[in-house]
Parts: sequence; structure tokens; C-alpha cells
Amino acid sequence: MNTTVGELAALINAKFAGDASLEITGVAKIEEATGDQITFVANPKYRKHLSTTKAGAVILDEQPDGIEGTYLITNQPYQAFLAILNYFHPPRKRPEAGIHESAVISPTAKIASEVSIGANCVVGDDVIIGSGCILDQNCSIYSGVSIGKDCHLYSNVSIREDCILGDRVIIQNGAVIGSDGFGFAPGEEAYAKIPQVGIVVVEDDVEIGANTTVDRATLGETRVCRGSKLDNLIQIAHNVTVGENTVMAAQVGIAGSTSIGKQSMFGGQVGVAGHLRLSDRIMYAAQSGVPSDPGENSIVGGTPARDIRLWRRIEASLSNLPELFKRVRKLEKALDNRE
Amino acid sequence: MNTTVGELAALINAKFAGDASLEITGVAKIEEATGDQITFVANPKYRKHLSTTKAGAVILDEQPDGIEGTYLITNQPYQAFLAILNYFHPPRKRPEAGIHESAVISPTAKIASEVSIGANCVVGDDVIIGSGCILDQNCSIYSGVSIGKDCHLYSNVSIREDCILGDRVIIQNGAVIGSDGFGFAPGEEAYAKIPQVGIVVVEDDVEIGANTTVDRATLGETRVCRGSKLDNLIQIAHNVTVGENTVMAAQVGIAGSTSIGKQSMFGGQVGVAGHLRLSDRIMYAAQSGVPSDPGENSIVGGTPARDIRLWRRIEASLSNLPELFKRVRKLEKALDNRE
Amino acid sequence: MNTTVGELAALINAKFAGDASLEITGVAKIEEATGDQITFVANPKYRKHLSTTKAGAVILDEQPDGIEGTYLITNQPYQAFLAILNYFHPPRKRPEAGIHESAVISPTAKIASEVSIGANCVVGDDVIIGSGCILDQNCSIYSGVSIGKDCHLYSNVSIREDCILGDRVIIQNGAVIGSDGFGFAPGEEAYAKIPQVGIVVVEDDVEIGANTTVDRATLGETRVCRGSKLDNLIQIAHNVTVGENTVMAAQVGIAGSTSIGKQSMFGGQVGVAGHLRLSDRIMYAAQSGVPSDPGENSIVGGTPARDIRLWRRIEASLSNLPELFKRVRKLEKALDNRE
Repeated sequence: MNTTVGELAALINAKFAGDASLEITGVAKIEEATGDQITFVANPKYRKHLSTTKAGAVILDEQPDGIEGTYLITNQPYQAFLAILNYFHPPRKRPEAGIHESAVISPTAKIASEVSIGANCVVGDDVIIGSGCILDQNCSIYSGVSIGKDCHLYSNVSIREDCILGDRVIIQNGAVIGSDGFGFAPGEEAYAKIPQVGIVVVEDDVEIGANTTVDRATLGETRVCRGSKLDNLIQIAHNVTVGENTVMAAQVGIAGSTSIGKQSMFGGQVGVAGHLRLSDRIMYAAQSGVPSDPGENSIVGGTPARDIRLWRRIEASLSNLPELFKRVRKLEKALDNRE
Repeated sequence: MNTTVGELAALINAKFAGDASLEITGVAKIEEATGDQITFVANPKYRKHLSTTKAGAVILDEQPDGIEGTYLITNQPYQAFLAILNYFHPPRKRPEAGIHESAVISPTAKIASEVSIGANCVVGDDVIIGSGCILDQNCSIYSGVSIGKDCHLYSNVSIREDCILGDRVIIQNGAVIGSDGFGFAPGEEAYAKIPQVGIVVVEDDVEIGANTTVDRATLGETRVCRGSKLDNLIQIAHNVTVGENTVMAAQVGIAGSTSIGKQSMFGGQVGVAGHLRLSDRIMYAAQSGVPSDPGENSIVGGTPARDIRLWRRIEASLSNLPELFKRVRKLEKALDNRE
Repeated sequence: MNTTVGELAALINAKFAGDASLEITGVAKIEEATGDQITFVANPKYRKHLSTTKAGAVILDEQPDGIEGTYLITNQPYQAFLAILNYFHPPRKRPEAGIHESAVISPTAKIASEVSIGANCVVGDDVIIGSGCILDQNCSIYSGVSIGKDCHLYSNVSIREDCILGDRVIIQNGAVIGSDGFGFAPGEEAYAKIPQVGIVVVEDDVEIGANTTVDRATLGETRVCRGSKLDNLIQIAHNVTVGENTVMAAQVGIAGSTSIGKQSMFGGQVGVAGHLRLSDRIMYAAQSGVPSDPGENSIVGGTPARDIRLWRRIEASLSNLPELFKRVRKLEKALDNRE
């Protein structure tokens, strides 16, 4: 799979500076790359490695001043990196189409022809699975579920009754879609379970992380909209909507009936209260707690989540808070003495 | 399944105002309901929708002033809603009793007659399963486990060695009951595993959420008491006791050997330190961190958890903290100038 | 399995005070032990129970003043407790070596002779499994995985393509090793998935908790080093390294490309930012948020994580913050009045 830097530059349509004949055998991270590997810088944090990297060539968005080397210059270094990664690491071979003999498939399930269903999968009554889908081993597809085209469900995924997946949905191992929402009516002595009769809809091009849980709606739908990406161990409660192209890092929790805007970004471990209607294009810093809508395009942090600049100032001043008490005490004494 | 408002009012024994002959075809959330649907208001947050809802009828606890419409008045609108929900969405048909041919059952397991065990379940030696239980596909019941009557275990649930479940226990997909507690003795060079030889006891009428983990005790028991409800992705460590009728929202974590009181409520992502003995009827706001017992009937928030009113005042004053530093600096200068 | 205190003292090589002939039938926690049981105190929090315990004998590190009883004195009460626990609760019988007839094993997998593979396991192409391993039911071992000797994988564990486990690795139920890292390149309209072509390496003597997720690297490796212990529901993102003998309590989240030092301790629910290089021997208090390296041997808490003593002072002063605003207001008025 060897090639030259010049050929790779052509592949990604990059401006080029350096030795076009240099042989490249693979890709690596900038800190680890060797002289026959190509690397990239997209996150500015990594520019500092440019002067020390041993990489044969670097993809980036503008040529660094005064640092010799072989550079492939492109507006979108990430995308270019993707193309080259695909070149060196072509996607894994698809499993062959077909249903493993150990899978248990309802006679009323409708499974398209180019589908691969792994060992020990269980597919319930009236399930529909579109062409090109791959279900790895031990998946549980409950009755009435509908899955679009070209989805990939990794091992141990459960899709509960009547939920709907769009096309090109990827669900990592152990995730649960459509578990009962957390709904209980307080009674005289004990809680009564509120039947959770709604469903979950996962739209096209969504990816859901390992062991993440998305609860079915009490009534109606829980919905993860087109293009959203959810990391591992996230909790999406009943009747939540996650807007289009929103990304959530691991361990985020969204309480019931909240609507998350589109094109938003969540750091890890963020918590969002229930019954909110959040605007679009918000960035939530890791661990923040969100009790109300911060407004479109805002960047927030802390609990309760505030404008991130204010929050950073608060965080910084906290270090001096014990000292501030002493200063105020001193002022009080000074005034007392004068009286 | 069509009926009239009048018949529904009779079903839930409600006082009634409006058109008794109105046809109702289903239930819906107040924001989404149409003219042939019935809805309800239990959470006061939703009263604001009363003036705009298109619902044919609304169940609630007192008739709203000056808003025309058809109302079913009852002291417990949640419970009434449950009854009507059950009317329109009767519980799913139980799977037929019997053991799927692909399940692997120890010859020493004792399984009552009216039990349904799904595909690819594994039931170990000396397991006891009571009548009316449903085990969905891919459940792992380790040796020595005892399960009471009328329990429902969804797919991919694991119940580890010797654990005990009461009657009417519901366990959502992927939950793990009885995994080893996190116990390691620090040695000279490395940690030695402390055998976790205790069990987990889950009492009657408990529900446990998807991918939640409840660790077995080091010695003795971890116990989730009668009527408690645990949401998804919760961690219950070894030797914890969760009191009766306590509810925990998703992603709560309880450290080892802590005893949680009864009739308490946990918001999402709360963390509780180990070796505590917490009182009854406490409400813990989301994301709070609990280092000690707040005392019976308290409502707490923040880290370390404090009285919620104090915590709300602290949160509010934080926004002005950077400014407070400037004010104190100004005072100091003013006093300096006078001297 | 009855024995005498004297024999147990000999077993753990302990100094001894009290009645050597006392019969002991088992172990228990100090609060629950009865007259024929032995218990221990390692955590000083539990010394307070010494005057009230009903235990027949107590293992501890020094004899308590003025409290009569039977004591086994040793420098390492935990280790001694382990030995006695093993005596009364010898490890569970290993399942017999062999492959369950319902397991699906690739013909190209290389499985050592003394291995036990449970029902419904799936073992992919070119997998290597070393001698003495136990795989409980429903485990998914993807193609190219290599597992060392004497590992134990509990039910529903997934090990993804090409990942490597060392010797004596324990993985609790439902954990996922090697799920795709969370990597997406922002495009004009939507995110493009960055192929995650790296692997996870889990070194010798690591234990990983129930439903914990460890993502594979984008390129290169995610690595959990020798002797580390991870509790339940932890998220380890792509390209993270966890140093040797580091322990993490439940629900910790480590963001991508961060390197965690060795011999560190994490309380529950800690969050660590991405792209950090953390020093060795750090203690992170529960729920802290870590944006930068606190430095070797530090003990930190809060968000952003600070020296724990400073953080405790900040936490304490917060309770008086609303009051402080009033005091400053009063000072301002006093000064105004004088002018």
C-alpha cells in the first residue's frame, strides 16, 4: 500500500510543498508518526508539534512559517485526512449477506435481500429490515421495529417494540433504544407504573454510542434527528427531541420532555433538566447543568449554566474567595475602629 | 376503540364539565392533542397550555377559571390518566408460556409452569423462577439465583450468582445485577482483588432501568427495597441499601456501604459518598454531591449538598462574584486614601 | 468449615490477644457480625464500632485501648482479611473446560486447551484465546482479538476487532472494549465519520467494571496499563492511556487522547478533559472536573480541580457568600454616609 506524497497530494487536491517522491506507508498521530508516515493538524493545540514531529509529511490548513518539511495544504485538513485514512485503511470487509443459522427470526419479519444477520440475533414479529443492513451477533429486535437501509447494529444492541430507525444509522455495542421511560405516578403508598406506549424514532445518519440508552416516549415519540451523533453511556429520557446534527460527548443526560436544538455541541457529563425547549447552535461545556434555555448561539458552562466567559471569571475568582472574606473582615474592623 | 368523554368520566369517577357526547379516539400530550383526543395536566408547568390546547378534553385537578372546554376533574389526575391510558393502550400481549428451544436451561433449575423464557437465555444450576415471569431473549441467569413471581426481565439482562429478586420486579434491557463490587486491597506493588462473596437482594415491585448496574456485596447484601424505582445507567455499589419507595433519576451513583433512606427522590447525576446513613424523605437536586446526611425531609442541592434555598441563593450570588471583588478593591482604596 | 480463632491467627501470622479456642464459623461486616464470626477494621471510620460489635474476633492493626475482646493484630488487616475470606469462601468452582455446543466459533480461531467458552458466545476469525480463560455466556469476541491467559469475561461482554487483552484480565458483565471512538469531522452540512482504525490494549491484571466502555483509538492504541482497576459505567475515550495501578470509581469519564498517570485514584463521576498529560500518583475527589495537570502527588477536588484543601475552604466559604454581599453593601453605605 506504499505510495508517494505527490500522489497523496493529488488524491486530496492539496497545494503542496516539499519532496513529492517521498514514500509514505501509512498514517499516524503527529506525536507518533515516523519518516514514512503522513499526519495532519486540524486542532490548533497540535500545531506545537510541527517543529518536532518526525512525520514524513503533514496535512494542514496553512504552511507554518520557518519550519522546513513536507506539507499538504488544504482548507479542510480533517476531510483530507479522512480521505487518506480511507486509502490506507479501507473499510472492513462486510460480512456476507445472509442470516446466521442460530438467529431466531419471526416468520412475519420482512428482511431485504442484502442483509447480514449475525449469530443469536432475535428478530420479532412484523419487523422490517432494509437492504444493506448489518446486525452483529446477539442483537434483539423486538416486534414491530422498522429499520431503514444500510444500518449497522453492533453486538448486544436492543431495539424495543415499534421503534423506527432511518437509513445509515450506526448503533455501537450494548446500546438500548426504546427502553421504558421513567414514569411513575405517586400513590398513597407506592408508585404506580405509567405505561410507556410511545416509541423512539432515530432519523437518518445518526450514530449512537456503546451502552447509551434512549427511552421510548410515554405517549408519542422520543426523537433523535438526522445527523446527530451520541457518544457512549448517554441517557436520553422519554419524549426528548435531539435536533439535527447535534453532537453529545459521553455520559450526557437529558431529562424527560426536553427539546434540544440543532447543531449544538455537548461536552461530557452535561445534565439538562426536563421540560425545556433549548435553542439551536449552543455549546455546552463539560459537566455543565442546564436549567433553562441559554439562547441561540450561546456558549455556556457551569451549574446553572451561564455564559462561558462569566463562568470562567467566576471559577477564577473562587480561588480567592476565602481571602476575600478576610479582606472584608479587615475593612469592617477598620471602619469599626474609626467610629 | 372509540368512546365518549362521558363514558371516560364514568370510568375514572371524575366530576365533569362540558360535552359528554364528544367522541374520543385516543390520548396525547397536551401540546400535541387534537380534538378527538383526551389529555391531562398533573404537573403545574403544563397548565399554561390549557388556553391553547386543541385537545377534546382535559383531565385535571380543578377547573380552570375562564377557559372554556371539556374537563374531567379528579383529585389524582395522574392516576386517572393511567386508567384511561390503559383503556386505549391495553398492556402488550404476554408471550406464550414456555421455554424457547434455543434457551440453555440447567437440569437443576426449578421453573414454575406459567413462565416464558426467550431465545438464547441461559439459566444456571439451582435457579428458581416463579410463576408468571417473562425473560426476554439473551438473558443470563447465573447459578443459585432466585426470582419471584410475575417478574419481567428484558433482553440482555444479567443476574449474577445467588442474587434474589422478589415479586413483580421489572428489569430493563442490559441491566446487570450482582456484578462484583469494586473492592481491592492496596499491596506493596499492586492491588489484590477482595473476593465479593455477598449477594444482591431486589425486593418486590422494584423497577431497574436499562444498563444500570447493581454490585453484589463484599459480604452480606446489597439491597434495593420494596417499591423503589431506579432509572437508566445508575451505579449502586456493594453493600448499599436503597430504602423503600425511593426513586432515582438516570446516572445517579451511590458509593459503597451507604444506606439510602426511604421515600427519597434523586435528580439525575447525583453522587453520594460511601459509608453514609441517609435519612428518609430527602429530595436531592440533580447533579448534587452528598458527603453527609442532610436530615429527614430536607431538600438539598449543590456540592457539597446544602439546603436548596441556600444553594439557590449561592448560585445566584456567584454571577456577581467577579464584581464583588472589584467592589471590595474599591472600598480598600477608599479607606487607604483617607489615611 | 468451622475453625478456631487460634488457627485463623496462625493462618494469617497475626499477633493474638484473647481466647484461642473460640469457634469461628464465618466472616461478616463489623456492624453485622455475631459471636461466632470474625471481622476486621482497616478503614479508621469503622474503629468506632469496636466497642459495640458482637463479633467473636476482630482483625486490626493495633489493639484498641481499654476494649476487651479477641483481637488478631497484623500490619495489613485488609490482606489478612482476604486470606480468611478465601478460607471461608473459596473461589467458585471453575466451569469445566470446553466449548458449549451453542457457541459459534470461527474455524480460524486458536483456542488453548484449558479454556471454557459458555453458551451462545461468538468467537470470530483469527481470534487467539490463551489457556485458563473463562468466557461466560453471550460474549462477542470479534475477529482478530487476542486474549491472554487466565482471563474471565462475564456474560454479554463485547471485545471488538483486533483488540488485545493481557493475562488475568477480568471484565464484568456488559462491558464493551473497542467500540468506535467518537470522531466526526464537521463538514458543510453534516458530520463525516472518521474511521476508527486503532485498537484497545488491556494489559495484565486489569479489571474492568460492568457496562464500562473503552473506545478503540482513531489511530494507534487506547491503552489500560497493568494492574489498573476500572469500576462500572466508566467511559474511556479513544487514544486515552490509563497508567499502571490506577483505580477509578464508577461513572468516571476520560475524554479523548488524554494520558492518565500511574498509581492514581479517581472518585466517582470525575470528568477529565481531552488532550491532557496527567502526572502520577494524583488523587481526584469525586465529581471533580480536570482541565489541566494538577502535578505529581497532588490531591484535588472541585471544578476546575484545585488543591483539595483550598477547595474545601472555598466550599465552606460559599455558604456565607450571600451574607458577604450584604456585608459589603453595608460597608459601602457606611463609607457613603461619611462623605
